[in-house]
Amino acid sequence: MAEDMMQEKGVEDTDARIQALLEVVTSLMALDDDAGLRKLLNQEHSADVADVLRRVDDETTQRLFAYLDSAQAAEALVESDASTLRTIVDDLEHEALSGLVEEMAPDDAVDVLAELDEEHAAQVLTFMDAGEAQELQDLLVHEEDTGGGLMTPDFVLVHEGATVGDALLALQNEEEVADLFYVFVVDDENRPVGAISIHKLVRAKPNQLVNTIMTKDVITVGYDTDQEEIAHIFGRYNLMAMPVVDADGRLVGRITADDVMDVMEEESTEDIYKMAGTSHDETDNLSVLGVARSRLPWLMICLVGSIFSGAVIHLFEATLSQVIALAAFLPVITATGGNSGLQASTVTVRGLVTGQVSSGLILKTVVRECGIALVIGLTCGATASSVAWLWLGETLVGICVGLAMFLAISVAVLMGVLVPMTFDRLGVDPAIASGPFITTTNDILGFFIYLGLATLMLQYLS
Amino acid sequence: MAEDMMQEKGVEDTDARIQALLEVVTSLMALDDDAGLRKLLNQEHSADVADVLRRVDDETTQRLFAYLDSAQAAEALVESDASTLRTIVDDLEHEALSGLVEEMAPDDAVDVLAELDEEHAAQVLTFMDAGEAQELQDLLVHEEDTGGGLMTPDFVLVHEGATVGDALLALQNEEEVADLFYVFVVDDENRPVGAISIHKLVRAKPNQLVNTIMTKDVITVGYDTDQEEIAHIFGRYNLMAMPVVDADGRLVGRITADDVMDVMEEESTEDIYKMAGTSHDETDNLSVLGVARSRLPWLMICLVGSIFSGAVIHLFEATLSQVIALAAFLPVITATGGNSGLQASTVTVRGLVTGQVSSGLILKTVVRECGIALVIGLTCGATASSVAWLWLGETLVGICVGLAMFLAISVAVLMGVLVPMTFDRLGVDPAIASGPFITTTNDILGFFIYLGLATLMLQYLS
Repeated sequence: MAEDMMQEKGVEDTDARIQALLEVVTSLMALDDDAGLRKLLNQEHSADVADVLRRVDDETTQRLFAYLDSAQAAEALVESDASTLRTIVDDLEHEALSGLVEEMAPDDAVDVLAELDEEHAAQVLTFMDAGEAQELQDLLVHEEDTGGGLMTPDFVLVHEGATVGDALLALQNEEEVADLFYVFVVDDENRPVGAISIHKLVRAKPNQLVNTIMTKDVITVGYDTDQEEIAHIFGRYNLMAMPVVDADGRLVGRITADDVMDVMEEESTEDIYKMAGTSHDETDNLSVLGVARSRLPWLMICLVGSIFSGAVIHLFEATLSQVIALAAFLPVITATGGNSGLQASTVTVRGLVTGQVSSGLILKTVVRECGIALVIGLTCGATASSVAWLWLGETLVGICVGLAMFLAISVAVLMGVLVPMTFDRLGVDPAIASGPFITTTNDILGFFIYLGLATLMLQYLS
Repeated sequence: MAEDMMQEKGVEDTDARIQALLEVVTSLMALDDDAGLRKLLNQEHSADVADVLRRVDDETTQRLFAYLDSAQAAEALVESDASTLRTIVDDLEHEALSGLVEEMAPDDAVDVLAELDEEHAAQVLTFMDAGEAQELQDLLVHEEDTGGGLMTPDFVLVHEGATVGDALLALQNEEEVADLFYVFVVDDENRPVGAISIHKLVRAKPNQLVNTIMTKDVITVGYDTDQEEIAHIFGRYNLMAMPVVDADGRLVGRITADDVMDVMEEESTEDIYKMAGTSHDETDNLSVLGVARSRLPWLMICLVGSIFSGAVIHLFEATLSQVIALAAFLPVITATGGNSGLQASTVTVRGLVTGQVSSGLILKTVVRECGIALVIGLTCGATASSVAWLWLGETLVGICVGLAMFLAISVAVLMGVLVPMTFDRLGVDPAIASGPFITTTNDILGFFIYLGLATLMLQYLS
């Protein structure tokens, strides 16, 4: 527990550093020290500069961006979030933006262009070299969160008949691509048949054939492969780079681990947001109405669901008005039931995402959760029962509360396991089964169990 | 929404593939086809073999593991989860295990040894080459989730005065290290001053000095740096490898992106579990009692909290028994309030983790959430009010419900933003502020607002 309470040190440190940088920037601006600002902003890491640009008001963002030289400006733009990016490009001439886009790696350039409206992007492309513009246009047709959207079309390949020397020569002749780690090996049809790290090439003899030392059975993905699947494959097989192939299996691009790390963060955020009943769009959407619109659907579902809970209470109004003391335990039953269901569903949903829970292990998981439900239900039931008895001095209310809590927890935990698994089987994302949905259903069932039980016992109560 | 409902394709595909593989394995076992099993299990990817071993019973795990040749066995062991790993090593002689550990990269070997009890690990080390054993022992002193625990002590370095040719020669002479992407450049004190990709070395002239083409200002971490911070730095600066330094700043190891991807998944799981009020230990803990023990503390806190909710209801029993119709809206107020608070706190907690919400943006975030609370509160309040009026036919109950819901949602959303931010400022992990904790507090406040308001309006009600 003590460790759980520890600071999120990494984020805190970065945060403090950016605040300090921001203060220096602010004082340099107050002094109108153009030279100082230019020097400072160009020597800091582009990710940090992007963070400074995000934290200041729009006018200052544009003013500071103007101090960046073209390489730094291009990188800062790539690192910027959607709303800062829009602030910056609103202030740029098409031609200037076009120059910056040309500096970017193709996969980054496409991400920036995708944030502009279509007409704007088209105009920026007209200022570029025709070949490069075409390359970007080809990439722009792919959805951002697919293999086609993540890949960069720059890579180095050699034929499977090539020697190590040929591969090294190909690397030396490639001017465009910045930092490669692997050379891909292809067959006559340009289909990847292997990969070889540059390190291995350096250590091999120049006349050795690449296909004798390459890693075979490379895993490839297509244009349409979802980024979540790609991240999963990278993590599962500890990859650093992966070839992307077209419908005929021909090599068309590569995806690298650094892009996948961003995807992992994005996908985790998406899952977490879904579990809480809101949407990942929120991060890109700074308008109050936009965010409200993404949160309201779930709240409305939950409101309607809770009206059913209310209807259950309404149904048992006669019981309640006879023993009003029962009302005090309504929240105890549903809060504890709801939370134990939330724990079970969260663990199940996350397990389905990471592969910890899989179809081969369903029975094992369910049996295990039954045991857990029993232990938790008995402990909480006994506690609630004692509290009810000690507080209200009514033995039968105590028994009723304890029994109802035990049953409500058992049902909630089982629901928490079975509902996400069922959703998963039906091809529905189990993340939406967690959070609000399960909590609301558990409320209804919890009230029904508790008040139903109380009604049955009514003749003995008070 | 339609997209949200899509299958988690990646995981599903892997799952189906492993099931198919498992079926082939099962039929080969039924046929006692040793040669077939040996061939199949040694040609599949070790991550997939580890998954098969996890899905079968303990005896079969041990039987199948015996078919693996030493390289595949070592890799499958590295890829196995804690409980499968224990099943396998229980069946191995110390000497055999020692041989497998020797095959592993040092960072993987340490992870495996860390799963054994101390005596067992010590015995395994005695069968190893003394130098290698010492290297592993030095690594074993570091916590698993720190820079020291993640790093591997194998790397290639050159002095800042070296030429490109020297660096390439160093790479060629290094027999031990499998796949490197960077050569680190150090000063006289062995402190990293730069890094250079092997690709860049290959493209440079042999007599060029490395310090003219290396990337300067490399980011380093220490033995004690938390893995979450390391993952954060990798993601922020798009790194593929990072040097680890000792207290004097001397290069002692490196961490690579593939290890960090595992950390990212682990940290996301930890955050998600914390938000639901359980602990990440669950994944490694298969015993029912162990899991129950990690879930019960939160449930107990929540049970106690909900007793306070109950006490609020108890406090207003007089009001409730006078207008029993009010009871039906108790769950509507708290469920909607609780969920809107959960949405706000989830977004805030995740924002603090990813750096989206930072101290420079507190005011902006709070003002924005106030606006969102207003929109959500008005919409839900109006809806609830109309439902109450239409359902129960009582205008004043309707007004009371609507007003209470508006207030409860506003309070819940603000709490959802302010509580995690305050915790974060106080140095307490904000993830534990989400989920059960906030929900329980919101329940108490919600009941108080609703029943307090009803009591004030009581003279006009019914």
